[in-house]
Formats: sequence, C-alpha cells, structure tokens
Amino acid sequence: MAVREKVFDVIISCFKRHGAEVIDTPVFELKETLTGKYGEDSKLIYDLKDQGGELLSLRYDLTVPFARYLAMNKLTNIKRYHIAKVYRRDNPAMTRGRYREFYQCDFDIAGQFDPMIPDAECLKIICELLSSLQIGDFLVKVNDRRILDGMFAVCGVPDSKFRTICSSVDKLDKVSWEEVKNEMVEEKGLAPEVADRIGDYVQQHGGVSLVEQLLQDPKLSQSKQALEGLGDLNLLFEYLTLFGIADKISFDLSLARGLDYYTGVIYEAVLLQTPVQPGEETLGVGSVAAGGRYDGLVGMFDPKGRKVPCVGLSIGVERIFSIVEQRLEALEEKVRTTETQVLVASAQKKLLEERLKLIAELWDAGIKAELLYKKNPKLLNQLQYCEEAGIPLVAIIGEQELKDGVIKLRSVASREEVDVRREDLVEEIKRRTSQPLLN
Amino acid sequence: MAVREKVFDVIISCFKRHGAEVIDTPVFELKETLTGKYGEDSKLIYDLKDQGGELLSLRYDLTVPFARYLAMNKLTNIKRYHIAKVYRRDNPAMTRGRYREFYQCDFDIAGQFDPMIPDAECLKIICELLSSLQIGDFLVKVNDRRILDGMFAVCGVPDSKFRTICSSVDKLDKVSWEEVKNEMVEEKGLAPEVADRIGDYVQQHGGVSLVEQLLQDPKLSQSKQALEGLGDLNLLFEYLTLFGIADKISFDLSLARGLDYYTGVIYEAVLLQTPVQPGEETLGVGSVAAGGRYDGLVGMFDPKGRKVPCVGLSIGVERIFSIVEQRLEALEEKVRTTETQVLVASAQKKLLEERLKLIAELWDAGIKAELLYKKNPKLLNQLQYCEEAGIPLVAIIGEQELKDGVIKLRSVASREEVDVRREDLVEEIKRRTSQPLLN
Repeated sequence: MAVREKVFDVIISCFKRHGAEVIDTPVFELKETLTGKYGEDSKLIYDLKDQGGELLSLRYDLTVPFARYLAMNKLTNIKRYHIAKVYRRDNPAMTRGRYREFYQCDFDIAGQFDPMIPDAECLKIICELLSSLQIGDFLVKVNDRRILDGMFAVCGVPDSKFRTICSSVDKLDKVSWEEVKNEMVEEKGLAPEVADRIGDYVQQHGGVSLVEQLLQDPKLSQSKQALEGLGDLNLLFEYLTLFGIADKISFDLSLARGLDYYTGVIYEAVLLQTPVQPGEETLGVGSVAAGGRYDGLVGMFDPKGRKVPCVGLSIGVERIFSIVEQRLEALEEKVRTTETQVLVASAQKKLLEERLKLIAELWDAGIKAELLYKKNPKLLNQLQYCEEAGIPLVAIIGEQELKDGVIKLRSVASREEVDVRREDLVEEIKRRTSQPLLN
Repeated sequence: MAVREKVFDVIISCFKRHGAEVIDTPVFELKETLTGKYGEDSKLIYDLKDQGGELLSLRYDLTVPFARYLAMNKLTNIKRYHIAKVYRRDNPAMTRGRYREFYQCDFDIAGQFDPMIPDAECLKIICELLSSLQIGDFLVKVNDRRILDGMFAVCGVPDSKFRTICSSVDKLDKVSWEEVKNEMVEEKGLAPEVADRIGDYVQQHGGVSLVEQLLQDPKLSQSKQALEGLGDLNLLFEYLTLFGIADKISFDLSLARGLDYYTGVIYEAVLLQTPVQPGEETLGVGSVAAGGRYDGLVGMFDPKGRKVPCVGLSIGVERIFSIVEQRLEALEEKVRTTETQVLVASAQKKLLEERLKLIAELWDAGIKAELLYKKNPKLLNQLQYCEEAGIPLVAIIGEQELKDGVIKLRSVASREEVDVRREDLVEEIKRRTSQPLLN
C-alpha cells in the first residue's frame, strides 16, 4: 500500500497538471451495459446473483462505464481521470502484476475538438508519467486503426476478416512473423500472397519519415482511410515535436490493440529494459500504458446514437507496482508504512498521564505522534519500537524534565539528545521533519 | 468528487497523525466469511453469481474483512485505516446520505494493550475529525456493553432476551421511552416492572460523576460485569480529561449500538445542530461517527480461536459529504473541480504551435496548465473558459510578445495584465498561485 500510494501520487498529480477532474462510477453496471463490448473476453465478466431487482455485473474496465456515464448525463465535453478497481475472472499471474481485482488509472478527453491536439496531450501524459515514475527507458508505439484497415483492404483481406486478422497482427510483439503468417493462412484461411503483402507492411516501424514514405506508397495511398490516418499521424508528429517527445514515439505498423472500440490513433508504451539489478530475473511486464481514440462508444449508449469523440489512456499500474516493489527490494530499501514523526516516551514509571497530555498537545498541533499503549513501558522497548517503525524522533519525558519544563528530544538515527523547552517542542519537531518522509 | 476529496484529505491526515498505516482488502469476500456476522441485516448482502469457483459476496462493512485479514495473516498487533466502499441491498435515501454503494472510513487498533489507552485514542480521533471538518457542534455518547448486560441482569431480563431488549433500547434516540417500553412489554413479553427498572437506568446520562454514582448503585454494583464496565469508563474519563475532550463526551445508558460483535466500550457521535441556514430544511443525518471494542471477532476467523482484542471507529462519511455539500450550496460557494493554475491562450490566429511549446514548458516545470483544443480560438472564448472553470491566470501569447520574449500574464479576477519575461514565467505563476486552491 505504501508503494501504491507513492505511485498514485505521481499519477494523480500528473492528471491534475493536465486539468483533469476526477469522477467515480459504481463498481457494478447493468449487465446489458457490458454485453457486447469486449468481444471474446466477455466470458471474464463477473455477474452478480439475481436477488431481485436489476441484473448487475462488476465493471470490466473504466472506459465502458465512462462512455455510459457521458451518454446518461448527456455530457459532450469533459476531461476526467478515474482511478479504481476493475474485475476479471482470469487466471492471476502475481509476478506479472495480473490479478482478478486490479486498479486501472484512466485519463480521457471527450469532446469535438480540432484534430490531434487532445491525442498529442495523451501521449505527452504517458511520457511525463513514465519519466517521473523512473521505471526505466521506454518507447511509445503509435499506429492508427484507419491505417490498419486501409492496409488490410489494399493487401486484399476480405472485409469480414479485418478484425480477426487484426488480432493476429496484435500478436507480433510476442511471436515471430512466421508464426503470425502461419495463423493467418492455416487457421484463418488467408491466401499466402495476401499474408506476405501484410508482412511487408507490419514489419516496418520508424518516425515521421515512415509516415511520409507511406503517404507516397503507391498501394496504400489508394485507400482513403489509410490516407486520413497517415495525414493525422503527420500532424500528430508535428505536435509531439513541439511537446519535445517525438524521440520517444515510434510509428509501428504492427501495433493493433485488442479492443474493438478504437476508431483512430492507438498507442502502447513498452519498457525498453526492465530496471532490475544485474543477475536478477527480468520481469515479463509487457506494456505499461496504452490507449487510443474511440469515437463511436458513447453513441452506443445514447438513445439517439449521438456520438461524442473520445481519446484516452490507461496506465498499467499493477505492473508498475510490481516493478517499483522489486526495485525497492533489490535496493534493500525499507518502505515505511506510517508517517509518524515522533514517539512520545517516558524514562520512568508512572508517567502515562504526562505522556497522554503531551501527545494530545502534539496531535492538536498537527504533529504525527504515537505512544506505546502501556502504562509503564521500558525506555528500551520504546526506542526499539522507533527503530522498527522508522520513527525518526523520540520525545522523552522524565521527572527531571518535568521539573525543568523541558522535553528530551532524541534523534533515533544519531542517538543525540537535547533538552527542548516544552513550548518550543512543536516547532523543533516540525523543523527536524520538514523533509518529506516518503520520497 | 471535489467535496469528497476535501473531506478525505482531512480524515486521512488525521489517521496518519495517529500513526496508522493503510491496508486494503478485496471488494468481495468468501460468502461464508460474511455469514452470521450481521444478524438480521444479512439479507442486505450482495452475492455474486455462481460462475464456477468460490462463492463470493460483496463486502458489507470493513470490520469483518479486517478481522478476517488479521486472522488469515496471523497479525496480533496493527493500527490501520481503511477507506473503501461497502455494499448493501438497501432502499437508498439520497438526502440522508444512504446509498447501496457507499464509503466507509475505518480506523482500528488491534492488539493486547493496557486498558482504555487505545479506546481513549479512538475517541480523541473522533473529536479531532469532527472539529476539523467544521460541520457543527457535536457530542459523543459513550456506554459499555458490559454495563448494559449487567443492567439487564439486575433488572431481571432473562439471559435469552438480552440481545432483543438491547435492540429496543437502541431505538431510544429516535422514539420515546413510552414506545420503547411498549415494544419491550407487548412485543417482546417483558414484565412491565422489569421494563420500568430498565427505564430508570436508560434515561440517565452525564459525565464521570454518573459513572461514580452508578459504581455506588446498590443494584447495579451487584453485577460483576457492570462493575468492570464502570471501572473502565472511570479510567477512560481520566484519559479523556488528559486529552482535553471530556466535555465532548456523554456517558449515556441508552446507547446500545446495533451490531452483535461489540464486547466493551461503545460510542456514537451525533451533531447537536445541523449547520444549515435558517429557514432551510434540516438534515436528518443522525450519527456521524461510531465504534467500539470488539474483542471476539478475530477469534471467529482463527482456526484455533485465538483472540485479538480490537477497538475502532467508523466515520459516517456519506452523511458528512451531504452536510458539506448542502453547506456549500447554502453559501453559494462554487467548488472547483480542477486545480488548473493557468490557461495558455493566444491573442491572434496561427499561434497553436507557440501555445503547444509554451504549455509543454509549463507542464514540465510542474505547472497545472490547460489550453483550448482549437487551432484558432478567440481570445474572448479563452477568457470565458477561465471564468467558468475558475482558472485564476491566463498566459497570453501574441506576435508582439513573441518578438519581445515575454508572455502577457493576466489575472482573471482583477483583469490586470503584466508582461513577464518568458524565463521568469514559471516562478511568477508559482508565486501567484502558492495559496492552496482548495481550502
């Protein structure tokens, strides 16, 4: 939880920096809202028991509830983030950060705007986040559904096979082109020469120069869809250059993304190397952020089919938790689970009343303070507790101190002790702990 | 959500001030974990559909999952808070802050400690929280299950009727003694003279002097249980006086609390007056915080029945949201839903590229900034957006400014504009927005 809090702090402050408000939706949706949105993965949806009333399911992601929310509240324009848990009846893989209940962190921009400006901001956010999380070097692959569809068309894929061939292409980050081609031809009945034509395209990746090259491509330029997609990517790269992140972006024709609802630009961020110490097992973490444009989803929930164009991103935060946790373990860095600044302790017996009076003063002044819940704790036990819990300071009350009107303030790390006048204690503790305890 | 965030900030910083760590548990538990813990209210539990695998239910509160978690992980000692949603198949009452999905904010101290020190800290936390939330004057009623049971025994209530008579007593905050007595006698078959004896006790409330008086009570002092409870309350009041909160606490013999699992001290905070403007409808919000000691619950989940004594509190945060929201509405105070510090705007056409460059500089420097997603927005529209969204500053780029190497910084409230050298812009924005935007 301490690691999670650190990661969420970084993510939330980035989303707020980009002017997003936060919304929340219920953990369950009407079952019908989720039906037909996730293709084959629908079998992974958790349903609630029919106990009377509406039929409900636990949310599978945050995008479909967001689209439902926009349509239901007739919102045509919002920039929001949403951090919440989603549910999938899947086989968990703990080390890879895959669970049945897991967090998603989504940022989306809904509304009719001039092309590629919000899309570029989404990519900027991904770059800012992955940089500030310091989880290693990364690359953001970019493609466009219209380019993929145009490419399938000019290669000779029948319309009815676009989605299933798209799924095959999507596997190229895990398996070789030979295997993907084999699936296309043997399992999905594509002619070998059609598959080869696809292969020529999907093995290409590069920067804006590849966009320009493909705009001149004699075959691909025959597809109006592909031209639209390429034109938008050209504009996108212009904006990404102005944002100073073009070097982090790779136009990759093999990027397909699983979900059906994307209609334009799609992207996926991958770590280039896993940030573990030499000799350790590397993490198979795959993509750490992804998203794209989905202009049709909100219309599916509107009775009149009114469309609200959307573009967004989702951070693979469970994977990031795993990486940060393993990195901290590798560094043998102990993460504090509390933020306590001072333990109120006593040097002799019969001082519980004095400890209670002092700790109330500290709490009331906003100091994070603890005491041991014992009438007469030994000083050694109190100091040991500080060591274990990482509490940096001890305020020690003794009979002599009470007479003198002072408190002995001890630094746990240096073991130095100084007498501080009681009326100066709060300021002195604040001064000594003004550095954030969690960096 | 903006109101929620403010309230959560206050609550979390209080819990951290008291040295609590945060834990999380899944939204669903094994069905059997929840069975037999909530008495009659068990019918309000949401079950998941049997899709193979374990039978699951949505959590009903955070206390039972916490006890399950302690037993499962063999923890004997922890101070934790947990803020999460719980689920009840209830009839919602929106204006009173009652929903089917709602937040609970729990703080609990588990472990074997010297008597009444953690209990006193829980009451201190309730007082700190309700004071800092500024939702009006409050009182915390305190009682002890052992005093109630002892009282029932000496009044002549048969053992088998303790719990059901306890439920009747619990209604005294809503209905008169006459009605409660009627229920005891007519519905629950208690002899009228037994009911009258109970009535003599439960209509009493006061401070530590009432504790002392009851310790001398010829009847009640015959009950060993009652004497234990009264002795602990005496000690508790001593600690509450040291904490400076004794005047907020009322020993109230009519406080019974619904849940079965309490074993010792119980408490409930109520608002003395609802903080609305004169002439407005008052809020029927009832209790805003409650809790108590439950020393037997963890043992129910341990295979060997090992007990872990616990004491805790739960904040009725949905009710507090309602109160804060209505107060803000009454004050016609507009709550900002974003924290954007500056809008990057342009005075002329064809300056999108310049806006993108500038906003990236601001984001990279940690400034919360937005721009309109239009190629050539009108200045007036940009200024209007700031008014609507409550953005305090506008950084305006114009051709002259570009030539001069400056940015025009405009205060939305005062309409004053000054030219700021581009390299000084970040510092100037930080300086002007250093006050927290959300107080």
